[in-house]
Amino acid sequence: MSGFQSIRWEETTGGGSLVLLDQRRLPFETLYLSFETPESVAQAIRDMVVRGAPAIGVTAAYGLCLPSLRWSEPGLRQRLDAAFAVLAASRPTAVNLFWALERMRGVLYAAESAGSDNLSVRQRLLDAAHALFEEDRNVNIALSDYGVDLLPDKANLLHHCNTGSLATVEYGTALGIIRRAHERGKQIHAYLSETRPRLQGASLSAYEMATLRIPYTVLVDGAAAYLMQKGNVDAVVVGCDRVAANGDTANKIGTYMHALCAKAHGIPFYVAMPTSTLDISLSSGADIPVEERPSEEVTEIRGVRIAPEGTKVWNPAFDITPGGLVTGFITERGVLHPPFTVESIQK
Amino acid sequence: MSGFQSIRWEETTGGGSLVLLDQRRLPFETLYLSFETPESVAQAIRDMVVRGAPAIGVTAAYGLCLPSLRWSEPGLRQRLDAAFAVLAASRPTAVNLFWALERMRGVLYAAESAGSDNLSVRQRLLDAAHALFEEDRNVNIALSDYGVDLLPDKANLLHHCNTGSLATVEYGTALGIIRRAHERGKQIHAYLSETRPRLQGASLSAYEMATLRIPYTVLVDGAAAYLMQKGNVDAVVVGCDRVAANGDTANKIGTYMHALCAKAHGIPFYVAMPTSTLDISLSSGADIPVEERPSEEVTEIRGVRIAPEGTKVWNPAFDITPGGLVTGFITERGVLHPPFTVESIQK
Repeated sequence: MSGFQSIRWEETTGGGSLVLLDQRRLPFETLYLSFETPESVAQAIRDMVVRGAPAIGVTAAYGLCLPSLRWSEPGLRQRLDAAFAVLAASRPTAVNLFWALERMRGVLYAAESAGSDNLSVRQRLLDAAHALFEEDRNVNIALSDYGVDLLPDKANLLHHCNTGSLATVEYGTALGIIRRAHERGKQIHAYLSETRPRLQGASLSAYEMATLRIPYTVLVDGAAAYLMQKGNVDAVVVGCDRVAANGDTANKIGTYMHALCAKAHGIPFYVAMPTSTLDISLSSGADIPVEERPSEEVTEIRGVRIAPEGTKVWNPAFDITPGGLVTGFITERGVLHPPFTVESIQK
Repeated sequence: MSGFQSIRWEETTGGGSLVLLDQRRLPFETLYLSFETPESVAQAIRDMVVRGAPAIGVTAAYGLCLPSLRWSEPGLRQRLDAAFAVLAASRPTAVNLFWALERMRGVLYAAESAGSDNLSVRQRLLDAAHALFEEDRNVNIALSDYGVDLLPDKANLLHHCNTGSLATVEYGTALGIIRRAHERGKQIHAYLSETRPRLQGASLSAYEMATLRIPYTVLVDGAAAYLMQKGNVDAVVVGCDRVAANGDTANKIGTYMHALCAKAHGIPFYVAMPTSTLDISLSSGADIPVEERPSEEVTEIRGVRIAPEGTKVWNPAFDITPGGLVTGFITERGVLHPPFTVESIQK
């Protein structure tokens, strides 16, 4: 299976390191960075060396297995608690990060209850991180298979941001569906909205489509509505960073605009959602914390200034799409159709 | 009245030249370019040295007064016909270009009928270009005054692209309304959508607002819907490049998205429309030619590449907003409210 490996664990005698593909430099440079402390992993998540809800969950899990935790020395638990805290503080919106950390915490508690020694605790955490990695791949493929069944044999699909190999451990969620449909012989053409400010569509998704030889066209975000008006979009497929119990969906800024425009044109709007992205503790999207990122993401593009000095910027990294605009959530266990209620989603 | 002068005629003994502020370099460099042939003026319009529907109309009119037409030599009419043709072929969507050229052609025919000599023809054309220049300023201010009356005393206004001094001969249309409201003491805050691909919002409009000390915030185009959802937009005000007899409006790509999102949130959507931008010869927007511009506008930003080599791009420069989404057209003769029909608009 050809794809990009955004996250790789390298086990060495008596230690290990987390290797991340620096996504800020793609598609122009393929650079792998190696991390040995939870703090540096948290910084890499914050700086978007790695991004995508599933990918940052797995990254954080590996961040808890690093040699700087000095596994054979006393006081491990305090160091682990600090590692949990620094990783949890890296980015606020995608729930997969917290979900993965909670899974890891459960493993830690179980190991402690079993009276494991420090090195056994480390092995259990590492096994759990590897399991999350494998699980993500399997979930991606399972949901992609469900997604394919929703698509016509010939389809123009609009996709926002990047939800492919780079946003996950390997296969992809919404781009996974596009990939799977292509692999299954459907005539798929992907319209990739460039996704300002960080241009994940024009850079990362275009790079993945080019590598997989899936036909694609890039457009500016503001052109999507006109593309729909012209009858050139059969469905919109996007990923998500957190879904509340009523179906309200946090995803990359611009998603809500696409959802409103799809609705106005009667175009299906699908959200690829690993169940790990569901947060039933929140009754609606109003409770989802939405990260605002630095102005420079908007006023500078790859280091080139575009706006006057002193320009004030509003730069939310995500927006909230009401569940009522979602035609279906495509999960690894099947497709959820509206109405979305705590009961229907839990089921 | 402080503003930018995008277009300036410099009369010299026995000739003259058209001086344009190179808007591609703003806000970082203030460079004036001088033109002496209609062909080079047409190229400057095509390359967007000057842009904005009103500005390119006036620019084209001056393009017919240049020394390369060799006013005292025989065969002037053929050279003028060629100049009309090359200027008319520079950009297809904004009707002001054709409107201004038609006005100039009428002046030419009248001068010929009157038996004017070549130098008198030239003077009449130059007088007509100056009149268009003055008229544009007056139209801008008149429509801005009508626009102000539609706004609350305290307003957050969303604006797309650039419609200020730079897009006109001096004052502005939609940004003129924002400017006028600010001058009249209303508490105005402008949200400027950056307007990919050419970033007229983040560069030109931000520069104008900063110079005029009008509070403003820049956001990516895809964030506008979320801004509306948060209740932070009291009205959307945009310009236009051509309006058909039923109110369908061609304007900068992204305008239609804003109109759909404004509708979904019950936010008024106003179009500042000098009557010179109305094209009643077209019954609907389907007949408006929409320019598609080079891929590099999307794949490169100020010379920096953002997408993989070989990326296919769809880059329409404009989109069509159905008249039904427009709350009102703000013209120099008053505000047009729906329904928009040939009769209501002509009146």
